Amino acid sequence: MSSTFPQRPASTLAALPTPCLLLDRDILTANLTRMAGQVAARGVRFRPHLKTAKCAEIARLAAPLPGGAITVSTLREAEYFAHHGWSDIFYAVGLGPGKLARAAALLRDGAQLVTMVDHPAAAMAVSDYATREKVRFHTVIEIDCGDRRGGVLPDSEELLAIAKLLGPNFAGVATHGGHSYDQPGERGRNAVAKVEAKAVRTASLRLQRAGFPHAIVSLGSSPTAVADADLTGVTEIRAGVYMFWDLYQAGIGVSRIEDIALTVLAEVIGRPASRPNEFLIDAGAFALSKDVSTSSLPEKKNAGYGWLCDLDGLYMPGLKVDRVWQEHGRVVSSKPLPDDRFQIGSRVRVLPNHACPTAAAHDRYFVLSNGDVVAEWPRVNGW
Amino acid sequence: MSSTFPQRPASTLAALPTPCLLLDRDILTANLTRMAGQVAARGVRFRPHLKTAKCAEIARLAAPLPGGAITVSTLREAEYFAHHGWSDIFYAVGLGPGKLARAAALLRDGAQLVTMVDHPAAAMAVSDYATREKVRFHTVIEIDCGDRRGGVLPDSEELLAIAKLLGPNFAGVATHGGHSYDQPGERGRNAVAKVEAKAVRTASLRLQRAGFPHAIVSLGSSPTAVADADLTGVTEIRAGVYMFWDLYQAGIGVSRIEDIALTVLAEVIGRPASRPNEFLIDAGAFALSKDVSTSSLPEKKNAGYGWLCDLDGLYMPGLKVDRVWQEHGRVVSSKPLPDDRFQIGSRVRVLPNHACPTAAAHDRYFVLSNGDVVAEWPRVNGW
Repeated sequence: MSSTFPQRPASTLAALPTPCLLLDRDILTANLTRMAGQVAARGVRFRPHLKTAKCAEIARLAAPLPGGAITVSTLREAEYFAHHGWSDIFYAVGLGPGKLARAAALLRDGAQLVTMVDHPAAAMAVSDYATREKVRFHTVIEIDCGDRRGGVLPDSEELLAIAKLLGPNFAGVATHGGHSYDQPGERGRNAVAKVEAKAVRTASLRLQRAGFPHAIVSLGSSPTAVADADLTGVTEIRAGVYMFWDLYQAGIGVSRIEDIALTVLAEVIGRPASRPNEFLIDAGAFALSKDVSTSSLPEKKNAGYGWLCDLDGLYMPGLKVDRVWQEHGRVVSSKPLPDDRFQIGSRVRVLPNHACPTAAAHDRYFVLSNGDVVAEWPRVNGW
Repeated sequence: MSSTFPQRPASTLAALPTPCLLLDRDILTANLTRMAGQVAARGVRFRPHLKTAKCAEIARLAAPLPGGAITVSTLREAEYFAHHGWSDIFYAVGLGPGKLARAAALLRDGAQLVTMVDHPAAAMAVSDYATREKVRFHTVIEIDCGDRRGGVLPDSEELLAIAKLLGPNFAGVATHGGHSYDQPGERGRNAVAKVEAKAVRTASLRLQRAGFPHAIVSLGSSPTAVADADLTGVTEIRAGVYMFWDLYQAGIGVSRIEDIALTVLAEVIGRPASRPNEFLIDAGAFALSKDVSTSSLPEKKNAGYGWLCDLDGLYMPGLKVDRVWQEHGRVVSSKPLPDDRFQIGSRVRVLPNHACPTAAAHDRYFVLSNGDVVAEWPRVNGW
């Protein structure tokens, strides 16, 4: 037992409260630049999805104003980004009748809010509300390209029925090839990307032929955004997790571990004497989330609740958060400890299994550049 | 397809944004009263744990002022409750050196903050800081009673070494029989309760005999708080999830489904034509959490991401959220749908698998009494 505590590096990381969310701006910027370039090379507009980042500072980098088009997952995000200057906003979750008034308020305030439905009853609710309240929605029809979450099939009768019900509120079609996440290889992702593009193209052509012209033919997911598929007829690509990446995306080979911009800073708070290859950190189920997406991957890619990196962001193989309680995370080491890096009071960074829910537990990012904390950026959580 | 939407009940539930968190105050009050009575009957002080509720309005009911003693899981909670008038606050997570300054600030502001360590290095950090900064901590030693999270064994050499290192900052012992959650029956829970009590009693007696008097001998978990065990030498019981209960606690038989005070209000936003026994709601991984604690129970108790109840809070058997995406939950029915209760725009309530992480995703409770929304109570999330 030593009477001194590990030296903090000459970085303000030492002054941060733990647990907290770190965002490496240098890695973020590289991720944004790379994706924007890849999408631009495909010849369509990019509409970054802010569901992961939920932060105006990040949106300013991903979809610069004026003119930046964005995607959001909640109306609270839509309201927040509209307040921060974005106008072209796609709320990419089926619009329930209970949200019509909030969506209409955004439209009245001047936002070009795009909404989405996939059911005749939802379309009728849009139409009825629009007529009654003298507002015009820009509503796309959600297409199911095989992800089997929401959406109508591109060759379904409902497609045309919904467009008819939407009337002047009809604005196009959109799909999300979320099953690209289940593809561990490039070939599988390219196949999903082709199915995704074909689904909206088919739906769009049917609608055009039936007399329903429209401006929006939207698709996307981070894995398919960079895949190889013919985008004829597609007007825009959406993607979100690419901003930060995570261990799941690294596990399926869409990114590398060193591309992960998001980590959780934690302190070592326990070193059980009877379990020498373990230590406890102050980041548990709440700070990391209980998402274990990588558990569906081969065991060597199963990151538990996160793998560790050091304070410089360097991945440290063999260290995994294998169990969490509300405010405790248990790290197991594949090699013998003790290790001077993991004494009581030492700090570590945890790479997220899945960036979206990990980020959602935190109200702000502590932003790093060249290893220094250079800013705090707030997030807009909730609904 | 009907051209009318389901009538909202004559309750202001219809006016709430979805998804949102509902708290039935009538059930909450009954849960609080029952537990307070059971703990009082055991002859020890009760120190409710606010890690689940994180709300001053709830704390006022669970640990009334003046004099109410509480437990918290973060320093942010400690600061928040101190600001709202509580003084006797136990921060029941191992205190890392990085949190000493914030803990000391609370002490200087007059709070009787109790902190906890389980390692000589952590104890030395407390002692060194106290001497240097002229502050006195009230620090208990965490005892591992078999939960194998944190803590030293009651018969370990470390126990006395840590007390010695703490010096005037030493205040007692505490344990948490968290493995009571793994016990599906009353007999098993009683066994854990006995082990829990014996662990702190043994540690306390050893410390007393070695010349380390102390005022705090603390234990608890919701399942063991109401179990049968000799509490000789124990000064206080802690418990938290009992305020709301959840499907996991109902699954192991500690509570009944009708005792669950917390639900998530959601709207039906999808009815896929090709999958007639499913519908989609606007509460997904973020609004419900990805906690699937009940998946460790027998299949008939596996609630997925939550079971459904109607707007009156009545459990509806056979409906389960079996898959979640960020903002979508997929409900599957064991009986054929369609069902007029689940049309596009209908509202349902989701009983939480595990109340703590579900509540943590929300910034406030919408409080119900007799079925009406009577208040909004904020939560203190984060760190």
